[in-house]
Amino acid sequence: MVKGYAATEPGGELKAFEYELGPLGDYQVDIKVEYCGICHSDLSMLDNDFGLTQYPFVPGHEIVGRVDAIGANAKGVTVGQRVGLGWYAGSCMTCEWCMSGNHNLCPSAEMTIIGRHGGFADKVRAEAALVVPLPEQIEAETAGPLFCAGIAVFNPLVQLDIKPTDRVGVIGIGGLGHMALRFVDAWGCEVTAFSTSPEKEAEAREFGADHFVNSRDPKALEEIAGSFALILSTVSASLDWNAYIATLRPKGRLHIVGVVPQPVSVEVIPMLLGQKSVTYSSGGSPATTAKMLEFAVRHRIQPTIETFKFSQINDAMEKLRNGKPRYRLVLKH
Amino acid sequence: MVKGYAATEPGGELKAFEYELGPLGDYQVDIKVEYCGICHSDLSMLDNDFGLTQYPFVPGHEIVGRVDAIGANAKGVTVGQRVGLGWYAGSCMTCEWCMSGNHNLCPSAEMTIIGRHGGFADKVRAEAALVVPLPEQIEAETAGPLFCAGIAVFNPLVQLDIKPTDRVGVIGIGGLGHMALRFVDAWGCEVTAFSTSPEKEAEAREFGADHFVNSRDPKALEEIAGSFALILSTVSASLDWNAYIATLRPKGRLHIVGVVPQPVSVEVIPMLLGQKSVTYSSGGSPATTAKMLEFAVRHRIQPTIETFKFSQINDAMEKLRNGKPRYRLVLKH
Repeated sequence: MVKGYAATEPGGELKAFEYELGPLGDYQVDIKVEYCGICHSDLSMLDNDFGLTQYPFVPGHEIVGRVDAIGANAKGVTVGQRVGLGWYAGSCMTCEWCMSGNHNLCPSAEMTIIGRHGGFADKVRAEAALVVPLPEQIEAETAGPLFCAGIAVFNPLVQLDIKPTDRVGVIGIGGLGHMALRFVDAWGCEVTAFSTSPEKEAEAREFGADHFVNSRDPKALEEIAGSFALILSTVSASLDWNAYIATLRPKGRLHIVGVVPQPVSVEVIPMLLGQKSVTYSSGGSPATTAKMLEFAVRHRIQPTIETFKFSQINDAMEKLRNGKPRYRLVLKH
Repeated sequence: MVKGYAATEPGGELKAFEYELGPLGDYQVDIKVEYCGICHSDLSMLDNDFGLTQYPFVPGHEIVGRVDAIGANAKGVTVGQRVGLGWYAGSCMTCEWCMSGNHNLCPSAEMTIIGRHGGFADKVRAEAALVVPLPEQIEAETAGPLFCAGIAVFNPLVQLDIKPTDRVGVIGIGGLGHMALRFVDAWGCEVTAFSTSPEKEAEAREFGADHFVNSRDPKALEEIAGSFALILSTVSASLDWNAYIATLRPKGRLHIVGVVPQPVSVEVIPMLLGQKSVTYSSGGSPATTAKMLEFAVRHRIQPTIETFKFSQINDAMEKLRNGKPRYRLVLKH
């Protein structure tokens, strides 16, 4: 029996919940969960904000643990090996997207917490190919958020072929944004943090920001018109996108990784004349995740976390709902 | 004295208008105009739709003619050489955009019909570097529209690194769209034409379309969900962008080259999950224009035009305003 924590209704409390995973598939592995980060989308799914949640619902998709069991044909990991698992727990392995290393874009990709149980449990199952070995040099306790928040902000640097000579802005200095500052700084870029919380300036600079802009100050945005090759928005709110687009250089990209509830609406003429674009992504492939981990080792990058015991799981969810985690919450067994 | 045709008020008739160009700059050339295409933006500028028009206003930015005079230090063209001139008549030649071959993105780029007189005249002036020699194999009479409509739809193929193995859709089969079908077909792609005019199907197929979709039929769009690497929208109207985005494959791009009056508004979740983007451009650099001309020669691509004499200039403008040119109107001396 797997011992997990499930909500039985939208917004409900997480309660002890036991379930069977059934027979292990030939290409699957079971992971004994050691740590699991809490992402804002765990909360959105718990509340059924996307209309996709099935109850009882076990959240958790920033998972670090050790391989506990391996299917007959599962390759690439060994029993006892420490691994991570993020938003994607399976894919078809035969379509053009899987065959070209873009497993996260597989039309039948299986999401760790949609229609199945996630990492707020002592065990979680996934296709072996979607599990990524954790390099020894990475501290396991802080590593969970790399598998969602980390890859969410690292992937655009690869996807958009960002150069170390580029100037990059990061909107929102939270779970994703603080990782973005670290990665973009290590990538060699000049980095500007945009935040509505001026009290975060000192920490943002420690994370790697060269500049800090109070995004409630419209004048501050005007002063940096035409500056950035990339603005990476990590927030889940609708912003004045046109104001940020004005801060882009020609050929600049506004890249959105947050689940923004309202449509993103932009004026056309500045986009046309500046050859600008609005680009999007969520997460990345196992190969890009492995590349991110290697980069994180080399640059000694890790998430800044607060740890809760699994027994404090509802306190942690409450803190995420009301408070401002600095900068990511992680549950541990 | 230059003999041109100018409007003196928004929406006004074009009347004979004479003016001096003053002394020729060291890096400039004068072009004796032979032909000038009519772009929809000539009409928009005539009507002051963009709020940028200065009267008397001489439209025309799809210019073909022969070099008539060359400034002391102007290079790259000779007197009598046949050349083309599009939307950009000058740039600073020193900023990073000019220095990297992106003269069209120069912040002080001079636009042929903004604050100066365009090609609806017997002579037009430009910086020599912004003038592009017309290869001998290209028929001069049909060539004008290459310098705006042509480069507008060719540039995205270069900018977005479109592959011959990609499937591409083209929205709107008019002045730009018919050129897009030809270029995309010659680029080696499978091409789908989207049009609200089913009677254009046969011609669209002649231009290179492999498929034709009546874009008023929502079912037709649903049937091709997830098909395209690129949808190139050439229309100046607000469409149901989300419906077209649903026809994109993962990593697909909706690229807009039309001056759409309303903001472009898209739902975020399909963009995130599909790693999609909305990209924009208007025109291209002199280097990309030269590349386009070379490609057009090799693939025997030319615009399909209707010709009017300059003396019929108001009839031509009226036809553009009310009628449906098949597919581009060109004025000739």
